[in-house]
Amino acid sequence: MNRYKLTIEYDGKNFNGWQKQKNMETVQGIIEESLFKFSGKKITIYGAGRTDTGVHASGQVAHFDIEESGLEDKDSKLGKLTMGVNFYLSRLSDNRASILETKKVTDEFHSRFSAKGRKYKYSILNRRTPSPLLKDKTWRIPNPLDIQLMQNAAKYLIGKHDFTAFRSVDCQAKSPVKTIDNITINNDGELIEIYVEAKSFLMNQVRIIAGTLVDVGLLKKTEKDILTALKTKDKKFSGPTAPASALVLEEVIY
Amino acid sequence: MNRYKLTIEYDGKNFNGWQKQKNMETVQGIIEESLFKFSGKKITIYGAGRTDTGVHASGQVAHFDIEESGLEDKDSKLGKLTMGVNFYLSRLSDNRASILETKKVTDEFHSRFSAKGRKYKYSILNRRTPSPLLKDKTWRIPNPLDIQLMQNAAKYLIGKHDFTAFRSVDCQAKSPVKTIDNITINNDGELIEIYVEAKSFLMNQVRIIAGTLVDVGLLKKTEKDILTALKTKDKKFSGPTAPASALVLEEVIY
Repeated sequence: MNRYKLTIEYDGKNFNGWQKQKNMETVQGIIEESLFKFSGKKITIYGAGRTDTGVHASGQVAHFDIEESGLEDKDSKLGKLTMGVNFYLSRLSDNRASILETKKVTDEFHSRFSAKGRKYKYSILNRRTPSPLLKDKTWRIPNPLDIQLMQNAAKYLIGKHDFTAFRSVDCQAKSPVKTIDNITINNDGELIEIYVEAKSFLMNQVRIIAGTLVDVGLLKKTEKDILTALKTKDKKFSGPTAPASALVLEEVIY
Repeated sequence: MNRYKLTIEYDGKNFNGWQKQKNMETVQGIIEESLFKFSGKKITIYGAGRTDTGVHASGQVAHFDIEESGLEDKDSKLGKLTMGVNFYLSRLSDNRASILETKKVTDEFHSRFSAKGRKYKYSILNRRTPSPLLKDKTWRIPNPLDIQLMQNAAKYLIGKHDFTAFRSVDCQAKSPVKTIDNITINNDGELIEIYVEAKSFLMNQVRIIAGTLVDVGLLKKTEKDILTALKTKDKKFSGPTAPASALVLEEVIY
């Protein structure tokens, strides 16, 4: 048996998230369908993270097992599997999902459990007028954001905390305790990008962090509210869940 | 009578270009319809350039005349007209077009004839695998491009030349002589951006320049072919017309 690691990009807009569901178009489902068309075999792929409906990825990772060998990309040329699966994937998904790389890995590798970190990017467009060119991939905030306040507030979220106030009510993780390794906020004119890095995340955690930081930037919330939200676990001190369409899973680190 | 200058952004994907046509959805048509809904008056707008079907703009300019005064944007707050017209525009176009600014100008101002320059950006994605996140706004070239060769070749296009080999057969401009003020090629990893600036352009000129430079980067054409194309006016020495979807009218300079 050979184990392969896939790096995957997708536009989450019209997918019902990553995880396979009956009668729903999902990223996992469409890749497995393409793998079946390519290999003639029913193959299950295991993703590093289950992105929600509407969330994008430029570096999602999955692994799978197959009897065939030599399917990985060699040198700079792309291998048989990347090109073959993309052929079916582009037709099935109208180019909304694409395999970027296929790599041979050992049997110990597991996309989810071997991951040392995950890096997400949340994009905000801070301007009064709508942007036809950026609307599908950014969250537009019409009123001016105080970036300095957002940067200061972000520091309070870094480290190991009980993130109960920063997860979905539907989150099924056993423990609400997570460690945020880093939050960086880049500001290039109207475009503000929030990068959040952690070993793993709770459901909607990055989106609630983005929503809370935006509330801070709009002076609706303060650094103190963040401390209170962490301490009391009460959602009234954290912000709203920011829209999925502005979130990208950029990298899974091993 | 008051003359106003509009700065406009649009996603060209589902428009039949800028210029109004019967029974076709165009950017000019939809803005005039929104202006009518806003003001109750039939208003004709005059665009700085007629972008083709599929071409985008982040800084198209148009002007129009209306009896009402005080419609311009004042200070950093957006004025009555920008907000009012965008209200209708977002509904009619599903946010595919947006007014960025409304400015009062003198009667001598003409969006087209007063323009000193126009700046276009052409975006290329140089990688073997499809990109779901960038596919709608870039031209993907799977084989490696030699950027240095493209940059050298671009220099031969700068200046005043007969661009017969670099315009559409449908181009109706009286003279094929144009002056390219500048071509800059930025290279950020897989993303290559070609900026072309001139007082005015022939039909499809930027797209044929992009197609020719890509041919040079792929070693299909040389600097010498560009010189021959300019001299002989023969299209077999220039490249293909690059796809419209990767082209953005970024700025009209006055």
